[in-house]
Amino acid sequence: MKLINKGKTKDVYELEDGNYLLKFKDDVTGEDGVFDPGANTVGLTIEGAGKSGLKLTKYFFEILRERGIPTHYIGANIEEATMIVKPAKVFGNGLEAICRYRAVGSFLRRYGMYAKEGQPLDAFVEITLKDDERKDPPITEDALHMLGILSREEYRTLKELTIKISNIIKEELAKRGIELYDIKLEFGRVGENNEIALIDEISGGNMRAYKDGKYIEPLKLERLILAD
Amino acid sequence: MKLINKGKTKDVYELEDGNYLLKFKDDVTGEDGVFDPGANTVGLTIEGAGKSGLKLTKYFFEILRERGIPTHYIGANIEEATMIVKPAKVFGNGLEAICRYRAVGSFLRRYGMYAKEGQPLDAFVEITLKDDERKDPPITEDALHMLGILSREEYRTLKELTIKISNIIKEELAKRGIELYDIKLEFGRVGENNEIALIDEISGGNMRAYKDGKYIEPLKLERLILAD
Repeated sequence: MKLINKGKTKDVYELEDGNYLLKFKDDVTGEDGVFDPGANTVGLTIEGAGKSGLKLTKYFFEILRERGIPTHYIGANIEEATMIVKPAKVFGNGLEAICRYRAVGSFLRRYGMYAKEGQPLDAFVEITLKDDERKDPPITEDALHMLGILSREEYRTLKELTIKISNIIKEELAKRGIELYDIKLEFGRVGENNEIALIDEISGGNMRAYKDGKYIEPLKLERLILAD
Repeated sequence: MKLINKGKTKDVYELEDGNYLLKFKDDVTGEDGVFDPGANTVGLTIEGAGKSGLKLTKYFFEILRERGIPTHYIGANIEEATMIVKPAKVFGNGLEAICRYRAVGSFLRRYGMYAKEGQPLDAFVEITLKDDERKDPPITEDALHMLGILSREEYRTLKELTIKISNIIKEELAKRGIELYDIKLEFGRVGENNEIALIDEISGGNMRAYKDGKYIEPLKLERLILAD
């Protein structure tokens, strides 16, 4: 098994059968020692963060598999904090698809002239480029198409899948009295047909979840969701 | 005649017949005393800047009128640096429509991972909010629609008009050996039918124009275009 990439929160290895192994690390993104899922820098190390993120990821990816949603997920080993996935080609150098149910974060920083903090949004989708240097800029369908990152058809599929998956996660959280404010997802082209599939992870670090009006930290979110 | 608004580069008066009078000032946008058409602050005062901007605006709006493009323009008095226009309702608190023929400026700052400086773009349209505090953020069709700023149909009209008008300006400049890199336009709803029409001005301050690979300052641009 060959190390392919050392990421901020995960290392990626290529397996001999062509699949990939993701090793979840205890490093989490943040700034100045404060955890922030939206940050582009590793802020601190929290013991157990890797396994915790993987547990939620396994849980959600298996629900998505049951619902017939295409993902790169094959299986997970919680003890070793590893997940086996199909190889995927990302769009350009990587995109993030954000689905918003409440106006917070970067949405509010951009559109605060027209939206109130916490205002409900109807599964509103935005695409951002993964580009630390340029602070993950938002990008339009036209620009994605023009720059050769996504075809028009791929954009439509990506948007539809983003809403479908986010709604499933939102329902799962709602069953436990937790409200999903927003979530960011990553997609890639998987298999010979370049099917658009969900990749990376789905854990507390990908979303803003609230209970009784209070933000829930990623590790606590995992315990709340997997308690039963 | 009643003062309605003191703008950064123009004052607006309401006339008794319901139309508006725009008084072009010699203040230009910029930062630290350096002229910058994209800046949100008044940087300096250049004698003759108001009249110069109005001359070009008159020139272009009259060309557009001949071509049947809807604008708010009624007439101009160069000596007094004033322009008479129809009343217009802006979209939300104001939008800017940018048409790009070369990758420079904020486009490059956002999408530099995928575009080279100066790379040709095919009349690529972006919409930004007029919001000094939030640095005029770009906005997608979906967000414009969701926030109630533009209907889907208005978005399509705005985009089509932006390309049509920008291409006319580009051709006019090309006749004089000048290349248009990008231009920003403003639109509003005019008349009883809320027809989408070009508003504000079209002068050197709205565009990046180059000759022999060198950027042309707004006042010089006016002299080059109106020389003949």
